Amino acid sequence: MKSIEQLGILAVQAEKVLARASSGLKNKALLACAQALRSGANDILEANRTDLDNSRAAGLSDALLDRLALNEKRIEAMAASIEEIAALPDPVGKIISGGKRPNGLMIQKVRVPLGVIGVIYEARPNVSSDAAALCVKSGNAVILRGGKEALGSNRALTTLLRAALASEGLPEDCVQLVEDTSRSSAAELMRLNQYIDVLIPRGGPGLIRTVVETASVPVIETGAGNCHIYVDKHCDIVMAASIVFNAKTSRPSVCNACESLLVHRGIAAQALPAIAEKLGEKNVEIRGDEAVCAILPSAVPAVEDDWATEYLDLIISVKTVGSAEEAVEHIARYSTGHSECIVTNDYDTALYFTGAVDAAAVYVNASTRFTDGGEFGMGAEIGISTQKLHARGPLGLENLTSEKYIVFGTGQIR
Amino acid sequence: MKSIEQLGILAVQAEKVLARASSGLKNKALLACAQALRSGANDILEANRTDLDNSRAAGLSDALLDRLALNEKRIEAMAASIEEIAALPDPVGKIISGGKRPNGLMIQKVRVPLGVIGVIYEARPNVSSDAAALCVKSGNAVILRGGKEALGSNRALTTLLRAALASEGLPEDCVQLVEDTSRSSAAELMRLNQYIDVLIPRGGPGLIRTVVETASVPVIETGAGNCHIYVDKHCDIVMAASIVFNAKTSRPSVCNACESLLVHRGIAAQALPAIAEKLGEKNVEIRGDEAVCAILPSAVPAVEDDWATEYLDLIISVKTVGSAEEAVEHIARYSTGHSECIVTNDYDTALYFTGAVDAAAVYVNASTRFTDGGEFGMGAEIGISTQKLHARGPLGLENLTSEKYIVFGTGQIR
Repeated sequence: MKSIEQLGILAVQAEKVLARASSGLKNKALLACAQALRSGANDILEANRTDLDNSRAAGLSDALLDRLALNEKRIEAMAASIEEIAALPDPVGKIISGGKRPNGLMIQKVRVPLGVIGVIYEARPNVSSDAAALCVKSGNAVILRGGKEALGSNRALTTLLRAALASEGLPEDCVQLVEDTSRSSAAELMRLNQYIDVLIPRGGPGLIRTVVETASVPVIETGAGNCHIYVDKHCDIVMAASIVFNAKTSRPSVCNACESLLVHRGIAAQALPAIAEKLGEKNVEIRGDEAVCAILPSAVPAVEDDWATEYLDLIISVKTVGSAEEAVEHIARYSTGHSECIVTNDYDTALYFTGAVDAAAVYVNASTRFTDGGEFGMGAEIGISTQKLHARGPLGLENLTSEKYIVFGTGQIR
Repeated sequence: MKSIEQLGILAVQAEKVLARASSGLKNKALLACAQALRSGANDILEANRTDLDNSRAAGLSDALLDRLALNEKRIEAMAASIEEIAALPDPVGKIISGGKRPNGLMIQKVRVPLGVIGVIYEARPNVSSDAAALCVKSGNAVILRGGKEALGSNRALTTLLRAALASEGLPEDCVQLVEDTSRSSAAELMRLNQYIDVLIPRGGPGLIRTVVETASVPVIETGAGNCHIYVDKHCDIVMAASIVFNAKTSRPSVCNACESLLVHRGIAAQALPAIAEKLGEKNVEIRGDEAVCAILPSAVPAVEDDWATEYLDLIISVKTVGSAEEAVEHIARYSTGHSECIVTNDYDTALYFTGAVDAAAVYVNASTRFTDGGEFGMGAEIGISTQKLHARGPLGLENLTSEKYIVFGTGQIR
């Protein structure tokens, strides 16, 4: 088993080749990776069965077992996702800006790979292939550190991916797996500034917090989503109910799902029953403030913790507010800065909300569920950033690059 | 004296107003700041004299005393610099990209302030006014944490700046100074993720390393410059000598000065004497490898440490190499990723070098001294980033912003 430092050294070596590989070569290698997953499906499934057996015996919850489980269909989806990534435009080499300076220097700002990316995630084998493909496409060597429950599956996957890369002439160490899944190896990875340029944690709030607090390597935080919808006094109640229903129930376990509803008191008596009726179709539990509970007999009283909770479940907290300003203040206090929405017909209020709310994505009259690389037109994403440094919102290929100034002179001195 | 946490809370409150202030208001407030430094020059100079007396008594070196010292001319330069920053275009509110999605959603990616920025620096009072002006212009509240030797000067400066901001209706807490200059307060500041969005350390390698290793707040590393010039076999020797002389001697103490020279063996016998003669005009000490010492009687033998040293002085390490590839490998090993240069007449070698060298700025036939916000046409800079996340190279106003997606819908659900 290689040490963390060895992985770092090998990644830097591989990166030197990968960073300068042509788009054509990278795409060919990715298509080979997709084929390798298909033809090696039996190896992956066998390793996954062992992972599942061990995790079941260790008492992993059904939800986590479901995330860990692979089948033919899921492997096909992973292969298809790699092919989609191969089809995306290559961000590397693009001239972002540039021009001639008065002294004749020709300055170009060019996109270059970040270098070596560490991805730290939980027991979801599909993240391994997605992250590997996004990193290779953007010219970055990747060190994958998945949850220990998925180690066998990840080993089978990365063995296939590495062989496929090598078959097309790219270094196999463009994709490496940390096989030592101890806490100390994770901590070492997070402080390997000499070899790793960026860390991307993907997972629950506990994982993210640990990485942010431990890492000295720069981190792109892919964060939790305590997403709000504010239903303004002037709004289309049918639209409000439809947006809240979609944002809460279409996929409750994801970070862009709505967790908290704010309703203007001037429309609460009309809007709340309509929204509650719609949410009732999927038996969503409503935790409301006093005014909400007075209007909705089915609501249970919310406690302080509810306002800060990302349920990731068919539960929603609901609060009445006296103004858009009060809604904005509540959001500033409890939001995780992911996706926030206002439903309104009022022009000034819409503009006020989009200006005053500080989040990766701010919506007027649309479901928060649209915060997604594909929906935003950037293709596959490696996560959704809730920090303000480097990138905010869905992280596409472009966000996996850095920049470099290239300056062509004719002997200029200063 | 306010606690670090109190400073954070006040900064967030001020930031809410500042983030939405118009360019006109911010510019008016900055012009008032410039005037305040001029009319309050006596207060600043008096405080600075006390700082200097204390520091002299404490045995601070002459070089550090010089950085700490203010006079009428330096204060005028600080005021003029604030006026220049006021005259730059406001990055906030710019639509970076956007368009209509097939489902009718109108998506805009808009520049927004980063939020609250912590700037950690040494005993250089001019950094206080520069950093404050750049942050205010880009809509960010700033918490300044300067070296303890400059505390009195910084207190005088920020008192004037805060009053000037308030006189134009901006919150005075847009600019705050950490008055507790203990190590523990610095450590607390670096881990104040709840209130601070980004940390920018400015100073020597020790300061930068401490911040990178201690901080949980995201950091923009403004780094050291172990900058190389590679003199290729095919080159204009007169140009090479002129560029090396300029890059080494025009301002030896800055991070874009050249520290190490690589010369192709095929031209060393001709190029080295010409370069050494030019460097001799300023008595630059040459530390060379065996081949260099054989050609230049004045050279002293270099030791391994020399290749990794940023002298910031009239000393240069000189090594002979057999090829551009060997030069690139040496640079990859010892470079800090700041500014690297090749002097060549060969087209292929020039393109190879700019592609293969991984640094913030890569030059062909021009002095490394051009790596500078003003020289790159972006106006004043807050530092030069040598990390790959967020921004690389000179950090202008645009690099002090984040982005936000604003999505206008008509009831879209997913």
